[in-house]
Amino acid sequence: MPDTAIRLHVADDLATGRHIALDGGPAHYLATVMRRRVGDAALLFNGRDGEWRARIEAMARGSCALVVEARTRPQADGPDVWLVFAPVKRGRIDDLVGRATELGVAALWPVRTERTNVARVNAARLRANAIEAAEQSERLTVPMVHDYLALPALLERWPRERRMLWCDESGTAPSIADALARASQPLRAPWAVLVGPEGGFARSELDALRKLPFVTAVSLGPRALRAETAALAALACWQALIGDWQEAHRHGS
Amino acid sequence: MPDTAIRLHVADDLATGRHIALDGGPAHYLATVMRRRVGDAALLFNGRDGEWRARIEAMARGSCALVVEARTRPQADGPDVWLVFAPVKRGRIDDLVGRATELGVAALWPVRTERTNVARVNAARLRANAIEAAEQSERLTVPMVHDYLALPALLERWPRERRMLWCDESGTAPSIADALARASQPLRAPWAVLVGPEGGFARSELDALRKLPFVTAVSLGPRALRAETAALAALACWQALIGDWQEAHRHGS
Repeated sequence: MPDTAIRLHVADDLATGRHIALDGGPAHYLATVMRRRVGDAALLFNGRDGEWRARIEAMARGSCALVVEARTRPQADGPDVWLVFAPVKRGRIDDLVGRATELGVAALWPVRTERTNVARVNAARLRANAIEAAEQSERLTVPMVHDYLALPALLERWPRERRMLWCDESGTAPSIADALARASQPLRAPWAVLVGPEGGFARSELDALRKLPFVTAVSLGPRALRAETAALAALACWQALIGDWQEAHRHGS
Repeated sequence: MPDTAIRLHVADDLATGRHIALDGGPAHYLATVMRRRVGDAALLFNGRDGEWRARIEAMARGSCALVVEARTRPQADGPDVWLVFAPVKRGRIDDLVGRATELGVAALWPVRTERTNVARVNAARLRANAIEAAEQSERLTVPMVHDYLALPALLERWPRERRMLWCDESGTAPSIADALARASQPLRAPWAVLVGPEGGFARSELDALRKLPFVTAVSLGPRALRAETAALAALACWQALIGDWQEAHRHGS
């Protein structure tokens, strides 16, 4: 049996003895890319039932059947941090979604701002990138993808109890480490990271953000960061300071 | 005059009244990409003399002359943190170099490990990516690019007073926030971040790293991170906790 464990996200319920049918991309990946054969094992997760070892019982051109054997990890949810971001160009947005998934985001929420030049966001593509990164990063969940909304609509729908860590480029906000050290939120409180578009937020958007009680503006230092860099840096600091990077063990959600 | 400031790195010394000749890529960028004309301004820096405003005094096909007018920012060096990394595929390495430059690395040091499948590293290409990111991120310096070395040779040459923050995937290391909080280094002490190759370090490499007095092993949480994600996350945490993100003002080096 090959020694690199393959992890696949499936929609099916998972329990010992269940039969899982794969076709399309996952079947091609198992058979052609990873050259797995009947009798080989793979790990499956669905975001609800934990991680399970399954064994390939049949393969045909373009499809594959597995039988679920035993649970390898119980389900666990990760920290509750979302990423709200103005979409960047294709390629760069794929990469951002993948890296943010590795960094443990629970949800991805693309937002249209005054200076966002992207008319539509391909949610299915975001979700596919998130699934791939979840499979490779050993997550037990896949980040939820919210609908692309304009900033005012998003702020109107925002759940008030969820803090929004806004990467403010004005240079006047406190440092992210200071702001998070002062945050007296209970552990596992809901948070989100907000990053603006390449051209920055418009004046009216800045004014609106500064007035909102759930927004915490933070600075990410003296250099100008690309939107993606700011998003990943803020998520990393959040995880390190108040997320699940404080816990000793590997294998989280 | 267009309102987006253009910043260009040049090799020349900079002082009021000096004439700077550009050709090749920089001249094309100014004239064709950014559509600047005679009389327009640009900001120049060379890593030694601070940042200067210059004005275009002549343009021809493929070349451009500027005259330096006044200094806009004095020279300042950034925090002294290096990034030591096993090279990843082209495209991904370009991106890593750009983002690490935004995050303020002083030097980039590609390292060959037992599981690194890259025979040669194009140092000129790394440097070009670092320059572009330095221009766009408002840095006053460009990260130095060290020669590609095998890990044992690199460790042998390592300056003993420089701490190495090793992103250890074993799951047994303390969290990065705890490790940096305990680091009793003086402010602005020299540091480096070390990330391994995609397949991880070999057993003998792990054993060698664990014995070195200048190495601090840290954990980046429960999920498996790509090498690039780990590098950027560790740099962001370092800057936030003991680097220059604690300082209030924008416009560092």
